[in-house]
Amino acid sequence: MSEKTLAEVDFTIIGLGLMGGSLAAALTGKVRSICAVDPNPAALQFALQRGWIDRGETRPSQPALDSDCVVLAAPVRANLAILAEISHLLPSGCLLLDLSSTKAEIVSAMQNLPAHVQPLGGHPMCGKESQGIENADPQLFAGRVFFLTPLPRTSTDALLFTHQLVDAIQARPVVVDAANHDRAVAAVSALPYLLAGSLTRTVQHLAHENPLVWQAAASGFRDTSRLAASDTTMMLNALTTNPLNTLHALRTCQADLQILIDNLESGDTQTLVQRLEQSKLTRRKYQE
Amino acid sequence: MSEKTLAEVDFTIIGLGLMGGSLAAALTGKVRSICAVDPNPAALQFALQRGWIDRGETRPSQPALDSDCVVLAAPVRANLAILAEISHLLPSGCLLLDLSSTKAEIVSAMQNLPAHVQPLGGHPMCGKESQGIENADPQLFAGRVFFLTPLPRTSTDALLFTHQLVDAIQARPVVVDAANHDRAVAAVSALPYLLAGSLTRTVQHLAHENPLVWQAAASGFRDTSRLAASDTTMMLNALTTNPLNTLHALRTCQADLQILIDNLESGDTQTLVQRLEQSKLTRRKYQE
Repeated sequence: MSEKTLAEVDFTIIGLGLMGGSLAAALTGKVRSICAVDPNPAALQFALQRGWIDRGETRPSQPALDSDCVVLAAPVRANLAILAEISHLLPSGCLLLDLSSTKAEIVSAMQNLPAHVQPLGGHPMCGKESQGIENADPQLFAGRVFFLTPLPRTSTDALLFTHQLVDAIQARPVVVDAANHDRAVAAVSALPYLLAGSLTRTVQHLAHENPLVWQAAASGFRDTSRLAASDTTMMLNALTTNPLNTLHALRTCQADLQILIDNLESGDTQTLVQRLEQSKLTRRKYQE
Repeated sequence: MSEKTLAEVDFTIIGLGLMGGSLAAALTGKVRSICAVDPNPAALQFALQRGWIDRGETRPSQPALDSDCVVLAAPVRANLAILAEISHLLPSGCLLLDLSSTKAEIVSAMQNLPAHVQPLGGHPMCGKESQGIENADPQLFAGRVFFLTPLPRTSTDALLFTHQLVDAIQARPVVVDAANHDRAVAAVSALPYLLAGSLTRTVQHLAHENPLVWQAAASGFRDTSRLAASDTTMMLNALTTNPLNTLHALRTCQADLQILIDNLESGDTQTLVQRLEQSKLTRRKYQE
């Protein structure tokens, strides 16, 4: 595979949801063929009708895996199970790329793949709270960071080929260590998701006491709580494969909230305004 | 004033920021005249150039207040100070409406206005994190809830006239009790704002340990933290005039977060998934 250009490569994408479907759509016309594997025939039909895939299989059997590049595009726990199931079926020289939202656990499992397979961890930073292939979008990856977490055994050729792939879908490849990656996503992905959920449950609770609450909810509540609508399975997978970093982020935020509570209780407006100014400046700088 | 239609009424808007500017813009051509009061001559100039106001004053002096309807459109603490300053200058029959984001404190102050003035609390639910008249928009109120908190002394005529006013800017009038209003906005306005700030400070803190954090930040962080960029003065005003309800909302949320931490620490995935499902369903139902 390493000598082939993207246009000469046969792909297999396992898991045809938002990520897998968008990848198939983004690669259409740019690769030799795309085979998709998904237990749901309707998802395969959806992609076939749009010309995003050349064939569909409901099981990751031998012929479906006879590709240059196999992409695991299910939630991380499903990817771990599929990896164990297919490892002995992967052809020699095959690049195995995963798109899981946490990397340490799957990269560790990839370490045990047969020596003739080239494994590489990947994570495109482009979630949506609406899942499923019906929300797939060939532009999903455009302009987004695409993290790559190579293993010590990953060849330079495999990494260079994946850079081509990431370029082709207009994402920006960023090579990182899996442990660093997982610390970072706990802060900017797991934590916002958990806060959005906590806000939503709190508002629901307070609405029991005062039905006016839902009438008063406007764009501020809407945006801050948006992530709470995310797919529970996918997010639970991300949390439970990254519990220590998630807990560290949650405890850090909990401590910050406690200071706010203390400031409000004691009427310490000066400290309160300093903290609010700090996050205002940080958030405005991030926006730029 | 009570017998006049909107087209016959002279308005004075005190405070020409996002709210006051948008109100002037939304009322242009629908009322007899609009005088604006703002200490910043550039804000007055901006509105004059666009034809949103007929004249501008830098001080709320007698001639500026000689109107049928005076609107207080500054942050709530400024509105309280202006109210004290102008109460003896308001003409007989004048409707005094405020747009403050908390209502109990200002409505209580309005109770002491001279008997010849008609006071009424108001709060359009349409904030933006970008403040200032340069972000004003005549469509800001369209489709949004506009809370009205009448006092026992507010006449039916004054309330009916304000309904006309709210209709004219295409907002939806909802009459509520000031105390209920303040409980509701603590849940859906103060709490999301404080969580957005806490998230931002936490991410900033974790980014010191791991610079990858900012690279990993995508739409999830962006939306959940958006409110942190809000104007600090305006939000501090809202928090410190509504501290008990804000503390109740914060403590409720803090307790919810603690349960998440406990679930993650003990590996109680079943309880965790129940909570995540609960907020997912609530948030999706809200969206509909």
